[in-house]
Amino acid sequence: MGGDHGPAEILGGVSLFLEACPDAKVQLFGPLDHLLPLIPTRFEDRIEVIDAPDVIGMGEAPTRAFRTKKKSSIYLGLDAVKSGRADAFMSAGNTGAVMAFSTLILGRHPRIERPAIATVLSSKKGAVLMLDMGASVDSKPQHLMDFSLLGTAFARAVLGIANPRVGLLNIGEEPEKGGVVEQATFALMSEAGAHYTFVGNVEGRHIFEGMADVVVCDGFVGNNLLKFGEGVASLFFDFFRVEAKASLRSLIGAWLLKPAIKTFYRRYDYSEYGGAPLLGVNGVSVIAHGKSQSYTIKNALLQAYKAVNGRLIEKMESALS
Amino acid sequence: MGGDHGPAEILGGVSLFLEACPDAKVQLFGPLDHLLPLIPTRFEDRIEVIDAPDVIGMGEAPTRAFRTKKKSSIYLGLDAVKSGRADAFMSAGNTGAVMAFSTLILGRHPRIERPAIATVLSSKKGAVLMLDMGASVDSKPQHLMDFSLLGTAFARAVLGIANPRVGLLNIGEEPEKGGVVEQATFALMSEAGAHYTFVGNVEGRHIFEGMADVVVCDGFVGNNLLKFGEGVASLFFDFFRVEAKASLRSLIGAWLLKPAIKTFYRRYDYSEYGGAPLLGVNGVSVIAHGKSQSYTIKNALLQAYKAVNGRLIEKMESALS
Repeated sequence: MGGDHGPAEILGGVSLFLEACPDAKVQLFGPLDHLLPLIPTRFEDRIEVIDAPDVIGMGEAPTRAFRTKKKSSIYLGLDAVKSGRADAFMSAGNTGAVMAFSTLILGRHPRIERPAIATVLSSKKGAVLMLDMGASVDSKPQHLMDFSLLGTAFARAVLGIANPRVGLLNIGEEPEKGGVVEQATFALMSEAGAHYTFVGNVEGRHIFEGMADVVVCDGFVGNNLLKFGEGVASLFFDFFRVEAKASLRSLIGAWLLKPAIKTFYRRYDYSEYGGAPLLGVNGVSVIAHGKSQSYTIKNALLQAYKAVNGRLIEKMESALS
Repeated sequence: MGGDHGPAEILGGVSLFLEACPDAKVQLFGPLDHLLPLIPTRFEDRIEVIDAPDVIGMGEAPTRAFRTKKKSSIYLGLDAVKSGRADAFMSAGNTGAVMAFSTLILGRHPRIERPAIATVLSSKKGAVLMLDMGASVDSKPQHLMDFSLLGTAFARAVLGIANPRVGLLNIGEEPEKGGVVEQATFALMSEAGAHYTFVGNVEGRHIFEGMADVVVCDGFVGNNLLKFGEGVASLFFDFFRVEAKASLRSLIGAWLLKPAIKTFYRRYDYSEYGGAPLLGVNGVSVIAHGKSQSYTIKNALLQAYKAVNGRLIEKMESALS
């Protein structure tokens, strides 16, 4: 039931996903009466519908919802993963609830104090995993160090990068740059040679140059970065949508450029990689953006599928042991 | 001598500035033999050249340079402001040196523990001042509160905004969002009603919506934001420069769109507003980007000029008292 576009868009994504992965099956959690009429006949034997009548609002407080909404799709879906009835969980619902419920139901890895939300961005050279994008704030050096190990496990399992290059987001390249936390983290990460190649400090503009495969930062910084970047991108999209139509000349220009823009947009739009995986919990849990449409839902499901096939949890386990 | 493009570009900017402001004069600091041949005859009586033979490299450590380069343009130029022989200082040289020398020579306002670098961005509704963009890290709530007062003074004096709306950069709108520092800062700023209108927490994507005239953040976050935003923008510019030329169709499209893109670029490029003022020191000091060309140098000088005419230091004084 999650997502701003309701169950039809989710179902569309599920169909695309089932087409792409012939060996996959999907369990759908939500109010039976809403969902049953939406199941496509051709996928009837690969979609199981499980009644979850409780609905968690997009603005609802997660801790309260955890006590009162035990029959919500988020609760029951994660419970299916916990009990082994499902391999992975994906939701486009209330982000805070998915995060909190995942931690409470699946449990954290014993070494991990704080799970992290990761986002896959596209650089000029390929995928870059950034974390934490907002699961927690006021991170300590050990938390950031843990994020680097979680990110490495994901890069190996899902992105197929055998030897991830890991960087620390900072405001300059020298080891003494940044605040107290960054300086201490730099020292910790410098000694992580057995786990990954530490490429040192990475500046915001270098992320898109592909200088690292995994970039680590505190959730306050990561979340602000992502939203600011969305703001900058929206200026450009507004340009094409509104301003480029101010004259006949530029109207024609924008029309001619349309296919090239579409290709460009697909490459850099981070919905291309699906959702944002929550790393550090004992199970695969992927959060899709509330505004996701079928194409993005498919990619989020595909990401969860790859995490299972790529043995994400096992790789995380071995990185942390 | 500062800036990646050398003195010719600076001189070009000085000429543009002197044309735009008939009552202004400029003192140029640098090696006499380099500068004298570059002075345009028509401005001979409005440009004074002062010998500053020491050159501070772009990578040189500011504290060391302060001891050894007393005859640098940055030292002598700021000294002219301090002694009242100049009204304002502008440099496209070593940013760290301009920052450190400004603080050491002009002195901090007694209430201000840490000066801040501000940047003027363009939102869809007009100018937005953001600070701190990297002068310091690990800011305490009182520092951020001070930044809000400095930013307000600048918005009044230079941007002509009588009643600035001030926001705190955060990862959500609710007062309890963010880390320990943001929560305490929110409380401090909520009580600043006598100084400005506090609009509460502002998210990265809302900056461009024009939800606030002044947005306050820690220098680590501000600096990363700006560089990440530059990275996102560079993807789009690369699109126009490289990818849009992959087919004849899009080549023609890009050519037709050129004038509209130029207008758009001018509106959102933050060099439009010139440099980045250093706020909190006892004098007007503006830092221009090292890669600035004449047009941006003119705007940076214009910003310094407006700060003097708008009585920035007086307004800062009264905001802090």
